[in-house]
Amino acid sequence: MLDFQSILNTISKVAKEQSDKGSVANYIPELSNIDPNKFGIALLDKNGSLYQAGDSNESFSVQSITKVLLLSMVFSMIGDDLWNRVGVEPSGDPFNHLSLLEMENGIPRNPLINAGAIVVSDILISKLENPKLEFLEYVQRITGDKSIDYDLKVATSEKKTGFRNYAAAYLIKSFGNLQNQVEDVLDFYFLSCSLRMSCEQLVKVFYIFMNRGNCLNNNNYLALSQVKRINAIMLTCGFYDEAGEFAFEVGLPGKSGVGGGIVALLPNKFCVATWSPGLNEKGNSKLGMLALEQLTTETGLSIF
Amino acid sequence: MLDFQSILNTISKVAKEQSDKGSVANYIPELSNIDPNKFGIALLDKNGSLYQAGDSNESFSVQSITKVLLLSMVFSMIGDDLWNRVGVEPSGDPFNHLSLLEMENGIPRNPLINAGAIVVSDILISKLENPKLEFLEYVQRITGDKSIDYDLKVATSEKKTGFRNYAAAYLIKSFGNLQNQVEDVLDFYFLSCSLRMSCEQLVKVFYIFMNRGNCLNNNNYLALSQVKRINAIMLTCGFYDEAGEFAFEVGLPGKSGVGGGIVALLPNKFCVATWSPGLNEKGNSKLGMLALEQLTTETGLSIF
Amino acid sequence: MLDFQSILNTISKVAKEQSDKGSVANYIPELSNIDPNKFGIALLDKNGSLYQAGDSNESFSVQSITKVLLLSMVFSMIGDDLWNRVGVEPSGDPFNHLSLLEMENGIPRNPLINAGAIVVSDILISKLENPKLEFLEYVQRITGDKSIDYDLKVATSEKKTGFRNYAAAYLIKSFGNLQNQVEDVLDFYFLSCSLRMSCEQLVKVFYIFMNRGNCLNNNNYLALSQVKRINAIMLTCGFYDEAGEFAFEVGLPGKSGVGGGIVALLPNKFCVATWSPGLNEKGNSKLGMLALEQLTTETGLSIF
Amino acid sequence: MLDFQSILNTISKVAKEQSDKGSVANYIPELSNIDPNKFGIALLDKNGSLYQAGDSNESFSVQSITKVLLLSMVFSMIGDDLWNRVGVEPSGDPFNHLSLLEMENGIPRNPLINAGAIVVSDILISKLENPKLEFLEYVQRITGDKSIDYDLKVATSEKKTGFRNYAAAYLIKSFGNLQNQVEDVLDFYFLSCSLRMSCEQLVKVFYIFMNRGNCLNNNNYLALSQVKRINAIMLTCGFYDEAGEFAFEVGLPGKSGVGGGIVALLPNKFCVATWSPGLNEKGNSKLGMLALEQLTTETGLSIF
Repeated sequence: MLDFQSILNTISKVAKEQSDKGSVANYIPELSNIDPNKFGIALLDKNGSLYQAGDSNESFSVQSITKVLLLSMVFSMIGDDLWNRVGVEPSGDPFNHLSLLEMENGIPRNPLINAGAIVVSDILISKLENPKLEFLEYVQRITGDKSIDYDLKVATSEKKTGFRNYAAAYLIKSFGNLQNQVEDVLDFYFLSCSLRMSCEQLVKVFYIFMNRGNCLNNNNYLALSQVKRINAIMLTCGFYDEAGEFAFEVGLPGKSGVGGGIVALLPNKFCVATWSPGLNEKGNSKLGMLALEQLTTETGLSIF
Repeated sequence: MLDFQSILNTISKVAKEQSDKGSVANYIPELSNIDPNKFGIALLDKNGSLYQAGDSNESFSVQSITKVLLLSMVFSMIGDDLWNRVGVEPSGDPFNHLSLLEMENGIPRNPLINAGAIVVSDILISKLENPKLEFLEYVQRITGDKSIDYDLKVATSEKKTGFRNYAAAYLIKSFGNLQNQVEDVLDFYFLSCSLRMSCEQLVKVFYIFMNRGNCLNNNNYLALSQVKRINAIMLTCGFYDEAGEFAFEVGLPGKSGVGGGIVALLPNKFCVATWSPGLNEKGNSKLGMLALEQLTTETGLSIF
Repeated sequence: MLDFQSILNTISKVAKEQSDKGSVANYIPELSNIDPNKFGIALLDKNGSLYQAGDSNESFSVQSITKVLLLSMVFSMIGDDLWNRVGVEPSGDPFNHLSLLEMENGIPRNPLINAGAIVVSDILISKLENPKLEFLEYVQRITGDKSIDYDLKVATSEKKTGFRNYAAAYLIKSFGNLQNQVEDVLDFYFLSCSLRMSCEQLVKVFYIFMNRGNCLNNNNYLALSQVKRINAIMLTCGFYDEAGEFAFEVGLPGKSGVGGGIVALLPNKFCVATWSPGLNEKGNSKLGMLALEQLTTETGLSIF
Repeated sequence: MLDFQSILNTISKVAKEQSDKGSVANYIPELSNIDPNKFGIALLDKNGSLYQAGDSNESFSVQSITKVLLLSMVFSMIGDDLWNRVGVEPSGDPFNHLSLLEMENGIPRNPLINAGAIVVSDILISKLENPKLEFLEYVQRITGDKSIDYDLKVATSEKKTGFRNYAAAYLIKSFGNLQNQVEDVLDFYFLSCSLRMSCEQLVKVFYIFMNRGNCLNNNNYLALSQVKRINAIMLTCGFYDEAGEFAFEVGLPGKSGVGGGIVALLPNKFCVATWSPGLNEKGNSKLGMLALEQLTTETGLSIF
């Protein structure tokens, strides 16, 4: 029997001792003020037992992790029609993100890159009456935690500086794959990325993907086949240009965000979240990557 | 001695008889209503003698031809500092225009592609107090014709549908190569492209590039070395992906626009403008290209 | 308890009834003569129980499936030094395979694309005394089947027509990432791809990847950590531009070949091989993809 | 009246005094031994008057300059059929030369990049009985100089190291745009590039392109329309990624080679050749570029 608490304690201790913690993202000005020494980790097993270490209760900006939740909401609403608007292949290429969009006629590679999440946002805006409120309630509902909220300052900060996202959105629109105004889509998209959660909250929200579509409160919000597919997309596309590396080193479906969070899961076993604001050169949390490698090495658990 | 009038008459007759006149541009809705049977040609020689045939006095939307005038104005104002913001190499690639921008860190290949003209517009906005008025006056001044004006309907139409230009502008801004707001830059850029001129007016405005920087009214607005460089850029970059083809078939510096206009010149000899709204698959006026080929074949005149 | 035999029977029956069987690969002339109506499937569970249906004992050209075996052999020999010569990221891009090599300085994206397998072949040639014989013996040894052999006619056929592989190899060599002569490397590479195996033999050879590095005969030829990493690479990179699609639809690590074979596995549970010569437009066996989707749907088994 | 001799003397003096002479090409080992302090210039006017300064009589490897001569020979033999096999557009892109070939289905952008000259070589091999001899005789004939010869050591050196050219040739062959064996085509191509000439010889061979198709000995070997087109291609494509820059700074059709030679011409006026082995970062002779800028600045002569 694995002693998760002891493993998390060790991982947290090792992480806090690392001298090279990566670099805090500075392209969203509001994110650049965070203390780079923070490190938290939380693990929730299938039975609902929760293990934590370090700054696991401190909330941070989940950023791109929200893309999995946007995907989950839209997939549960429109099903496989989604795949007419966005693909399921890894983007692979560290360069040329806009060029790939150009060559592929405005169909983003997958829903976990910015362009794909922008298309998902566009669909949600078209389908929901009050998208900002309804998406927040969806996240609160599957987590069972009404205290989760947006961070307007971060959303505003990104809106003022996210020129590349504007470029992607306008390019998609030029191909007819965006139905709403770019301003409206990005307004919702930036807000959704500004969600603040702690590691503890993150493992609770991702419990649904680990537990075959059933939340902690036992409600079923997602079909099993949809859960499997979301997990497959996380594995192949969840870590920017480092998706292969993460599958190779860690071997779990997961998603990272430039706020320094990473969440990953072993289907039917556990989900785990880490937070450390310093990023590696590919934009993933440096200590978070190391922590998850250590976790799967020490436990011998991975999907492979 | 060449009988230009007789040559233009023949060219105009041949053009009017062509059955395949290409396709009128429809990506700017306001431009798509034009009669595809129009054909005009005008030639102005160094002595100021003007020759015309067909619909040479009818004005049309000059569109990209304006990029040469934007370049001319900014070059005369800031000189070679311009080349810190934009290059002088042909873009070559029919695909991936945004991708080239990505790979080259937001420095557009040359001032005659959209991205380059957008950067030129940005500089003019920063330098001029009333850029819309001052640019119009500049064009009127070098032409000696105060009747030249913008077409607000066309500008508005492009503003509503020019998503790809928004994408390019935001991408440039993400690299720090745009100092003003995207909306302001494109507002000016779209307006500048909406200039209406006839073939007769076009040869008068391009006289300055044929005549070593001196206008028809003998005022000098451009240094000879700058004229030569603008002509070199027109030759290598003036016809989208067909620049090599135009140099090969026609052998003159020139510039085309999706409104169906083409203007070209033989330094120290003449400038010539054609107008026929139908475009070939590369976006250049189909009959205009044929007319200019015929002109250089019949006269034996080219820079080569 | 799953009745694998009955499931395979159903899958085989459904496959044989499909009217659209895809198109047999014709770029290797010798492969184009195969009967497109062939369909075989074999499944080997962890306990060594073997289930088969259709043409599961008929051997065919495994082609790219051999890349996993080349990778396995080289990885067991030189360990993580391999990753100095080849990456672990999906290639993503359907176009521009040579261009990716150019941009990434001759380091192929991963060992399961042609460029990567060519580099792996180069390493084996440098390390082995008699690479052709030793690789064959390696495959025979982990399968426990000495009847497995190369198909010289197919190898020769590919050698005469595989110009794009020559292009890739020379490009890699121009970056200094190929130590042997291109002719020698491709001679070995084409021969290794010409291995003939039946579905039954394929599941026996891939048993090692399903069973934590231990072969059917219980010998251990690969460290567990290496097995996991090979499985991760198969999942993210095993199906050309359809890797994401296969992870999404099937949810198993696997590898396809243009001979129409596919082999996939669920760690610690089973491995499965299908064969149907007709390919879909991405180059993967059309009926094989459908059969594996059906298998994971009906059994509910996947890594996700 | 221009005093060419005095201008050349000044240019040569200035060049010899430059401290930064660029870097001698080292990718062809045999070329790397050349004295970087060499500088020669020769100018031949339409009347046949020859002016020289510096090391203008010393022969060097003309390398890519030979592409113009291959083009000239094949164009005079098969006319416009050539354009079914190769384009006339600048390649523009400093990266991705093989990628452009991929995207454009094996049709090289123009005959003055390596890929294009390889296709031209393929045509000559198919058309000529003894291509190596006949091409040499063609060059000797239009120059009126039987002493011009290949440098077998340089050709052999390039053959051993020109992996990227092999890659390009195989890629072209994979698209069906190469009819002969890659080895045979490159054998001829590398030999043709190894031609040795002095600046004096180069201006004599390029006299034909300056003088409307007529050689120094008055024989006509090329139609005027073909000369104009070759000049147009030189202007738009003659300087790798610096074609626009050369048109912009110098304003003459021309061609450079990595041996440090540059030849350029003003139609009906003169042709000029420079030699200085040090290259700039774009692969063009550093001092040669400066010398030609100085020449057109001081004489005021350019096609623009």
